[in-house]
Amino acid sequence: MTLSTPAGYRPLDDASLRRFLADLPDLAAKLGGAPSDWSIVEVGDGNLNLVFLIDGPAGSLCVKQSLPYVRAAGESWPLPLDRAFFEQAYYRAVAPFTEGLTPRFHHYDPALYAIVMERLSPHIILRRGLIEGRRYPDAARAVAEFSARSTFATSDLGARIENKAEWMATFARNTALIRITAEVVFTDPLAESPRNRWTSPALDAIAAEFRSDSALKVTVAEWGRRFLTTSEALIHGDLHSGSVMVSETDTRVMDPEFAFVGPIGFDVGAFIANLAMNAIAQAGHAAEGDDRRAEAHWVLEQIPVFWNTWRARFLALWEEGGRGDAYPSGMFAKAGDTAPFAAAREAYVDRIFADAIGYAGVKTIRRILGFAHNADFELIADPLRRAPLEARALHLARRFLMEPQSFRRAEDVVAAVREG
Amino acid sequence: MTLSTPAGYRPLDDASLRRFLADLPDLAAKLGGAPSDWSIVEVGDGNLNLVFLIDGPAGSLCVKQSLPYVRAAGESWPLPLDRAFFEQAYYRAVAPFTEGLTPRFHHYDPALYAIVMERLSPHIILRRGLIEGRRYPDAARAVAEFSARSTFATSDLGARIENKAEWMATFARNTALIRITAEVVFTDPLAESPRNRWTSPALDAIAAEFRSDSALKVTVAEWGRRFLTTSEALIHGDLHSGSVMVSETDTRVMDPEFAFVGPIGFDVGAFIANLAMNAIAQAGHAAEGDDRRAEAHWVLEQIPVFWNTWRARFLALWEEGGRGDAYPSGMFAKAGDTAPFAAAREAYVDRIFADAIGYAGVKTIRRILGFAHNADFELIADPLRRAPLEARALHLARRFLMEPQSFRRAEDVVAAVREG
Repeated sequence: MTLSTPAGYRPLDDASLRRFLADLPDLAAKLGGAPSDWSIVEVGDGNLNLVFLIDGPAGSLCVKQSLPYVRAAGESWPLPLDRAFFEQAYYRAVAPFTEGLTPRFHHYDPALYAIVMERLSPHIILRRGLIEGRRYPDAARAVAEFSARSTFATSDLGARIENKAEWMATFARNTALIRITAEVVFTDPLAESPRNRWTSPALDAIAAEFRSDSALKVTVAEWGRRFLTTSEALIHGDLHSGSVMVSETDTRVMDPEFAFVGPIGFDVGAFIANLAMNAIAQAGHAAEGDDRRAEAHWVLEQIPVFWNTWRARFLALWEEGGRGDAYPSGMFAKAGDTAPFAAAREAYVDRIFADAIGYAGVKTIRRILGFAHNADFELIADPLRRAPLEARALHLARRFLMEPQSFRRAEDVVAAVREG
Repeated sequence: MTLSTPAGYRPLDDASLRRFLADLPDLAAKLGGAPSDWSIVEVGDGNLNLVFLIDGPAGSLCVKQSLPYVRAAGESWPLPLDRAFFEQAYYRAVAPFTEGLTPRFHHYDPALYAIVMERLSPHIILRRGLIEGRRYPDAARAVAEFSARSTFATSDLGARIENKAEWMATFARNTALIRITAEVVFTDPLAESPRNRWTSPALDAIAAEFRSDSALKVTVAEWGRRFLTTSEALIHGDLHSGSVMVSETDTRVMDPEFAFVGPIGFDVGAFIANLAMNAIAQAGHAAEGDDRRAEAHWVLEQIPVFWNTWRARFLALWEEGGRGDAYPSGMFAKAGDTAPFAAAREAYVDRIFADAIGYAGVKTIRRILGFAHNADFELIADPLRRAPLEARALHLARRFLMEPQSFRRAEDVVAAVREG
């Protein structure tokens, strides 16, 4: 199958990437030397894109380019190139609020659908680090700061109707990736789809059980409806531990190509779910003299670190003064309003947490019964070792969805994983 | 104050309107004769626009043109002209689903911000008819059909993500009118605003009481937040009885300039609130030998006619087959799914009703304590006769907002009005 692409687009290779960067004087200067001095390596291990790291005598860069298909599925699953447009639009929109928490954005080429940005070094993907049993003491806090600051500033609490309208109008058109989420996260995993897979035969019974659980499916469909109809803030749209780069001292959120004006809890829940899955998977990475109990414990503790940081930051930003059109301060100017308004703010973030729990359930199921699985489980080679851990995660996900009242605080999630 | 307007724009007058229509051969032919044969009258009694009725020997037309300010407030409150663009965009978007339920759309002039449409005759505004004690047996049913059909088709139940995205992108920019709603409906009436007015001194105490009721204000602010963050379907945005034209046998919904992709319950609640206010106001229009009891009773009974028609139509459309991405039918293909999926559809429309009750509360308060009042009450000349009826409506509105669990069905609204 040959995919048609716009005139001017070509997938970059070593030679064309050198020419592309050489034509951008500021960026070529960052690399230093001559184009022939640059070393280039393609490292895209995600599902969708080409990713090049370029090292020159003076510095380095990263180039991310859209491919016209889902890389993980091949050319049989075409995908519009314009997701690179939405990724750079997101970086630019949140830049004023997320200084130091994303890779620095340098340049966007609309014909090549290519983004040039800071190359992070010696960072690795958080998920990989956690699987290896490493600890990143600042990661959960930094991701929480990133999410709370960017969503507050782009919500109706922090932004004016007119500013939010521009983000709504721009990102509403990110339909290709919104459709992918709708289908592979909310629909397929509990339906029959050729894109689904799971650890078989060990999980055949539970997969069948989930797909016959009408109440569970109605609940997931209701979260899917909310996903499509909640325009709360500009969200990242794919905020799992594979979208975070870390070093011992630095944390950056990347890969916001799924961004749109959506439910804040979707991002919060994604990060919580992926921490929980990693913690559950730790036992599968145990080896002689390395039982991973302490690591699992540590990862799990990052869930309250993440949520409590998020909650405190979001509330602090709101108290410092919402400039948006929701909960306008002029309505709460009387002395007697102070405590009820504070309670309303608490209720707001509690509701975000409740949303996060629902989305965490959905996101967990999709990683085990759906199309795109997590390295946390996938790198457990032995299916007989992997399957019981995946089953534990599925059990937790079902509790998230069907017993939401059991999860009022992040500490409740920690307790549930320990019990499970 | 002189308002700057785009080149090419001028408010139409008798002479320029004749030239404008003469230059549109199809429409001039509808009128027939020569331009000098046409009779023109300006009838805009709304808050925002010029409205001309043009009668020719062969037929008639209506032309609605934006003014660059809020007509009801004067040039001191400027307003972008582009609301005419959103009005015609809405008519075109919902036309496939609302045949016979709106005025026929003929032409839009983007430079003049002028819409040419069918002149409805002998129709009058539903609100005026109800105030005069007339009955329109088909009106509530027709408005319900209009709302259920247009919102289902433009929701994630009836539309694909890609289609809804276009409406999201287009109508997100209707910020001038979205801001008016946010301010004059949700914010001002329970805050201090020079735009507010109420029947004074009779309602001074209750106005002060409402503005000191922190719990009520938090509830209204929460509905305001939901209004700004719920992208459920393309809604009319101002679906009160003043936006409906009726004859004995025909009903048309007009004036959709506030349209955007918003909460379905906002339209449903607006219509319910305005019926309830009219029913409460009937006693104020009583005269010797005309106590208006039967009329009040009849208007009140239209609330269940409206809601039960809406509910049945929306559910029927969904059962006939949702083509959207929410609640995808592929998730509910197993035999055991039938009853739970049907229950989910019922829960969905029950939730719309609950939303409608909340918005009905907000919309009632704003008509009595805010900027734009209703003719239903305003035409009761004697403030001592008007105020107790307005107070009854305020009491009902507070019940809608603070005792939502008392309103599960439309019949509960009827009972509450009767008790009040």
